[in-house]
Amino acid sequence: MGVEHGDPTVGELSEGRILRSILERLGESQAIVGPGDDAAVIAAADGRVVATVDTLVHGPDFRLAWSSAFDLGYKAAAVNLADVAAMGATPTALLVALAMPDATRLSFVTGLADGLRAACRELAPGCRVEGGDLTVSDTLTVAVTALGALAGREPVLRSGARPGDAVAVAGRLGRSARGLRLLFERFTDAGGHPVPVDETTLSPGERDDLAAQLRPGPPVALGPAAAEAGASAMMDVSDGLVLDASRLAEASDVTIALESATLGSDVEDALAGGEDHALLATFPVGRALPHGFTRIGSVHARGADRVLVDGRPYVGRGGWDPYLDWDSRTG
Amino acid sequence: MGVEHGDPTVGELSEGRILRSILERLGESQAIVGPGDDAAVIAAADGRVVATVDTLVHGPDFRLAWSSAFDLGYKAAAVNLADVAAMGATPTALLVALAMPDATRLSFVTGLADGLRAACRELAPGCRVEGGDLTVSDTLTVAVTALGALAGREPVLRSGARPGDAVAVAGRLGRSARGLRLLFERFTDAGGHPVPVDETTLSPGERDDLAAQLRPGPPVALGPAAAEAGASAMMDVSDGLVLDASRLAEASDVTIALESATLGSDVEDALAGGEDHALLATFPVGRALPHGFTRIGSVHARGADRVLVDGRPYVGRGGWDPYLDWDSRTG
Repeated sequence: MGVEHGDPTVGELSEGRILRSILERLGESQAIVGPGDDAAVIAAADGRVVATVDTLVHGPDFRLAWSSAFDLGYKAAAVNLADVAAMGATPTALLVALAMPDATRLSFVTGLADGLRAACRELAPGCRVEGGDLTVSDTLTVAVTALGALAGREPVLRSGARPGDAVAVAGRLGRSARGLRLLFERFTDAGGHPVPVDETTLSPGERDDLAAQLRPGPPVALGPAAAEAGASAMMDVSDGLVLDASRLAEASDVTIALESATLGSDVEDALAGGEDHALLATFPVGRALPHGFTRIGSVHARGADRVLVDGRPYVGRGGWDPYLDWDSRTG
Repeated sequence: MGVEHGDPTVGELSEGRILRSILERLGESQAIVGPGDDAAVIAAADGRVVATVDTLVHGPDFRLAWSSAFDLGYKAAAVNLADVAAMGATPTALLVALAMPDATRLSFVTGLADGLRAACRELAPGCRVEGGDLTVSDTLTVAVTALGALAGREPVLRSGARPGDAVAVAGRLGRSARGLRLLFERFTDAGGHPVPVDETTLSPGERDDLAAQLRPGPPVALGPAAAEAGASAMMDVSDGLVLDASRLAEASDVTIALESATLGSDVEDALAGGEDHALLATFPVGRALPHGFTRIGSVHARGADRVLVDGRPYVGRGGWDPYLDWDSRTG
């Protein structure tokens, strides 16, 4: 966000001027009523709408030394698209509430809009930003609401897993946590403050891990595919596989038994790493897993533990809790 | 937010514990799928859903010395319910993204939940909070998404006003601005910092003005009523009558002629005061105004000015722009 000639701050501009700069980057509205009125009107052809909201806050959720405006817009869209997909639905529209310090450059706002659009285009074609809200705030905050359509199918809840079901995952686990570790280990100064990433110092694998952290690409289309294939339960893996699997197990009143041999070479990251936005789903016996899902375990009758790994309770760190785990740094 | 025995901060609690405290205050879910899964599923019986988002940020939008947690929840719901109503729709569900400092007391969170619920109950029966998101932030921020149903009617846009239409308003104008002025004039210390309100020093009229500012009660049910009565255009008056009327005039490519004699005793506040959340609507000639609407002018063919007051251009301050007008104070 360096000072550039011809790149005013939002504090120097009217709300209308900022809005126009955003809207012209979002492409043609797909809605019945798009941006510009008191509210949007979105098609919900089967008489139901899936709705979710998720917020990225400067400090606990991102650092501006590490995330570009484009990255931030991309991630804010992606994490919400994943939640819609996890219901078995197809995203239809986003609403974006953007709260920014006065000193934010207009180029940052347009970069963020570009990231939102790119995530929609790549992960959920047909979905776009159809409304939103601009406010001034001391803390840069992006709250995205995502809407979705079930196309006549029942929503796939967390509570439908039954003993005997296969447990499967779509999307790779552990990469985002490795990317975050890379940032903290390699791109902070002596005082622990974030410094910009020098990608030339990274191996191709490290670059992939970093991209998974900064611009996650959840398998959005596989949510409806899992629903079509008869998934009995599904959820977005955002806080770590063990923690999220324990939530699914709790909601379904079962025990989930994971097999570590199915989780790749870095089992610990796959089990405990957060922000993967993979889809965790269960499928009744006899159902073929849809293409893109990998079997990682099975559902058991409820036992003493919600989650077992190779038959034993998991003793590692189970995941990430934003209220207990943030260290109050920004940067 | 004083330190109370048995009133922990959110920084001392898990996300799950905070969520439970909120959910138990929101009442029974009215949704197909309510809180607790990756997303909510809301009925949208006529195949469309109205959707809007609006954010309240500590500093520009409220001061904690003046707004209680209940007030804040009430207002965050009310301003969004008004936007749904302004499309001619009935609110069906809210999603709430709440970002809070670690030091926020649990009692503040539950007070906010009580305010959200009360606003829904009083202004939009049948609507309630059906989903949301909790994050930690240095800046207390409440982003509310509201969804609504059109029940088979066409949405009432800003762009439908035609020359000859009557201009009408539902809800009182100017009170919220007078309430805000009261706060700045009577409840700040020598340094201009907010101090708590002593209601015993206020006249009944002043108490009404203050309530309009802190807990606005937009005429939500009159939005669908106006649509039923054939309103040609409608919008929520949030930034001041003249500024918002000029937006409606711009969208409809007309001029709106207001008559100051219809605006009560304090014409200047009615014309320029923000945050009233009244409904401004236009009705074709010959249509009876629905009960609750008052005629305040008429629509003319587009002239040199978007808005005329008693036949002349308006030269006062037209309204409020969050990016140009905030003075950076919090408190």
